[in-house]
Amino acid sequence: MTTASTSSRLSVVVIGGGFGGLQAALKLARAPVDVTPVDRRNFHLFQPLAYQVATGALSAAEVAHPLRSIFKRHPNVRVLLAEVSGFDLAGRVVHLGPVVDEPAPPPLHYDALVVAGGAQYSYFGHDEWARAAPELKSIESLIDARGRILRAFEAAEVEQDPERRQAWLTFVVVGAGPTGVEMAGQIGEIARDTLRRDFRTIDPAGARIVLAEAADRVLGTFPPSLSTKAVRALAELGVTTMTHHAVVGLDESSVTMDGPGGNSVVVPTRTAIWAAGVTASPLAKLLADASGAEADRAGRLLVAPDLTVPGHPDAFAIGDMVQVRGGKPLMGVAPVAMQQGRYVAHTIAARRRGDRVRPFRYIDKGNVATIGRARAVADLHGIHLSGFPAWVFWLALHLYYLIGFQNRLVVLIRWVFSFATRGRSARLILGGARATAAGSTAVHGPAGSDRADL
Amino acid sequence: MTTASTSSRLSVVVIGGGFGGLQAALKLARAPVDVTPVDRRNFHLFQPLAYQVATGALSAAEVAHPLRSIFKRHPNVRVLLAEVSGFDLAGRVVHLGPVVDEPAPPPLHYDALVVAGGAQYSYFGHDEWARAAPELKSIESLIDARGRILRAFEAAEVEQDPERRQAWLTFVVVGAGPTGVEMAGQIGEIARDTLRRDFRTIDPAGARIVLAEAADRVLGTFPPSLSTKAVRALAELGVTTMTHHAVVGLDESSVTMDGPGGNSVVVPTRTAIWAAGVTASPLAKLLADASGAEADRAGRLLVAPDLTVPGHPDAFAIGDMVQVRGGKPLMGVAPVAMQQGRYVAHTIAARRRGDRVRPFRYIDKGNVATIGRARAVADLHGIHLSGFPAWVFWLALHLYYLIGFQNRLVVLIRWVFSFATRGRSARLILGGARATAAGSTAVHGPAGSDRADL
Repeated sequence: MTTASTSSRLSVVVIGGGFGGLQAALKLARAPVDVTPVDRRNFHLFQPLAYQVATGALSAAEVAHPLRSIFKRHPNVRVLLAEVSGFDLAGRVVHLGPVVDEPAPPPLHYDALVVAGGAQYSYFGHDEWARAAPELKSIESLIDARGRILRAFEAAEVEQDPERRQAWLTFVVVGAGPTGVEMAGQIGEIARDTLRRDFRTIDPAGARIVLAEAADRVLGTFPPSLSTKAVRALAELGVTTMTHHAVVGLDESSVTMDGPGGNSVVVPTRTAIWAAGVTASPLAKLLADASGAEADRAGRLLVAPDLTVPGHPDAFAIGDMVQVRGGKPLMGVAPVAMQQGRYVAHTIAARRRGDRVRPFRYIDKGNVATIGRARAVADLHGIHLSGFPAWVFWLALHLYYLIGFQNRLVVLIRWVFSFATRGRSARLILGGARATAAGSTAVHGPAGSDRADL
Repeated sequence: MTTASTSSRLSVVVIGGGFGGLQAALKLARAPVDVTPVDRRNFHLFQPLAYQVATGALSAAEVAHPLRSIFKRHPNVRVLLAEVSGFDLAGRVVHLGPVVDEPAPPPLHYDALVVAGGAQYSYFGHDEWARAAPELKSIESLIDARGRILRAFEAAEVEQDPERRQAWLTFVVVGAGPTGVEMAGQIGEIARDTLRRDFRTIDPAGARIVLAEAADRVLGTFPPSLSTKAVRALAELGVTTMTHHAVVGLDESSVTMDGPGGNSVVVPTRTAIWAAGVTASPLAKLLADASGAEADRAGRLLVAPDLTVPGHPDAFAIGDMVQVRGGKPLMGVAPVAMQQGRYVAHTIAARRRGDRVRPFRYIDKGNVATIGRARAVADLHGIHLSGFPAWVFWLALHLYYLIGFQNRLVVLIRWVFSFATRGRSARLILGGARATAAGSTAVHGPAGSDRADL
């Protein structure tokens, strides 16, 4: 059984509530079409600030906005919480799996399809590393990372053995893209500023923070001069940048890297954070299987210049999970996905009117990364900013794009306080393997972890 | 090996960072003594607002404040993250278990001990009910409850079978104390206001909300006239109050109650929330075992009029986990614990000076419970308030006692927005059994749940 479109209006299914899918759905919502956004999560995650959850600077709800609330005033939009299990592009049907409860929702028929599944970090084929090194993408993993960082200082405070204590006070961030650089900088600030007066046995400022990067410089997508400035800013925060060092081993007690000249470096650490490698959403493979289209080495689907799946003019794929076949490679960043989302919404409406549409063209407005309090680098069409001006630009840009006035206000307040006091209010250690093992309550455990029991 | 006090100053160990322990430690921090607060969590949870996490009105970090940050400006206070494994009252030693990592921290010697372990909900001896009905005390359980409530509406939206859909749209709150009443009222508001325009198939306002209470009225600790007013306010929010109904069975598909005259009532529901039964922290039993002191039926230790463990003038026990032997029974509420915390801090300092101290006496300033937007009841020494004035009083009181200016400001903003828009910003479905089973990333899972993958 298929849920057929009940009206004669165009029915558009948008898979994924990230930047690309959200922009497409928002623009289509204002057109006389029926829109069905599908996501397996009930919120849009503002990915560029999400890493701040891992640093305790922001709460999950401050960077995540319920999808239903975004579309509540659009009766022509029906949000669906579901998992995609397959595409039938010839029959124009999306098959769904359940997220909440069996049975699965019925398949969705579409007149036009937009797939925006995004990308994720890849552990270089070592999925077992994920146990020891949470990645900085999913909200659960960010909360896990936050707990590990804070627990490490707690463990160091009670640890009597100097060597073990030093391993607790060592943090390795893998991957020096914007997220890895920002994360390493923020761990530096946590150690030097936020926790400065919190402990009595250890000195958190003595923490060792290593930023490991296989390539020859950090922020590879920025101009080299800004990479140099970033490394300097990181050093001021106590971060040791190790470029030319590829991670080849990782577990709960150490990170092993291959350095220049084949030298192997082992860093004893109890806390590794992952922000390296990129692989397209599994939806890219599902689309490739359904269409016979090709994918690149990172699993990204190669789409036509109008962002359609080759041979299927009704099916678009956008964002981090695609590259345009034969086009200039585009970065996996929010502005690309957002422009593509608006482009496909425009294309769908234009074709409906019988108009022709030009191929997608990305307008690059620049690139900015923050490193810590009052430190950032920005590349705006050849204008290179660094330090405080770049940081103010970064703040304003991210506040502007954050969804919801309330969230903007609350995040602004958090940042103002954080800037003034160097504090971080969301420093909670929740759940987590160790806490559970020690007798605290797991999510479904008995009523055992009351406010301050033991 | 025992960590002996390194100075000749009095060494006070305070177990538990709830209201009682926190007040004792804060007051002692200003005295010339060494204070060691011990908790297995790294934060103080502001319990009276914690249920609002389960309703998506507030985030965890807005009701939880890091303990270290509270004491950062007191060098004589050393916070310890640890679990208590036993007391040696004769030797004046607390034995600890690890929270973060083996080995356990060394035992703590004390000159004076304050134990404030609190209480927790009890499942009437049916711990297996905890799987189906999260309780409203621990932060993990509150986040679990929030996910279940929101997921239920999502499931109902895609459910085709009317009977199954109705079970998803039925919510049972067990226990009609202040927390249960507030929770039931808030579910009513979520259904009728917050989610009003969010769904296209179901009408959330058609949700059935049942408040089950074994006793003869709700809010048993308030005057009967206010109980009546509360039931009326709940009815306006769509809540069916069932007093004289004791829960005798509970699983993932229904709640069974014994009603008046032995009639059995089965309510098919997929979402039950637990706020009934009270049992003292296991620390009460550890103290009873160590001292030979008695406990009451709820496991509360019976302490001397000066709140010491009988026979051990250096060991105090306070808050929800105790009752004064032969005294008037005191409620397990924050004001009692806070007054007791300040009393024991005062007593420890006074005895040091050789002064005598009178027995503890609770000064009851009144009692207030909120039911929903602009609805509350208050009993202030015979002055009974209800409706809007009681609600404003409730708001002001809770904001005043919340810790941290930043949290006060943020919570105030959240409430203002919530009042104006009837929205709730923290409506996130995180983790949880079902989401994991459907392929989302568990806390330690691989990098599979990126921003909007499926």
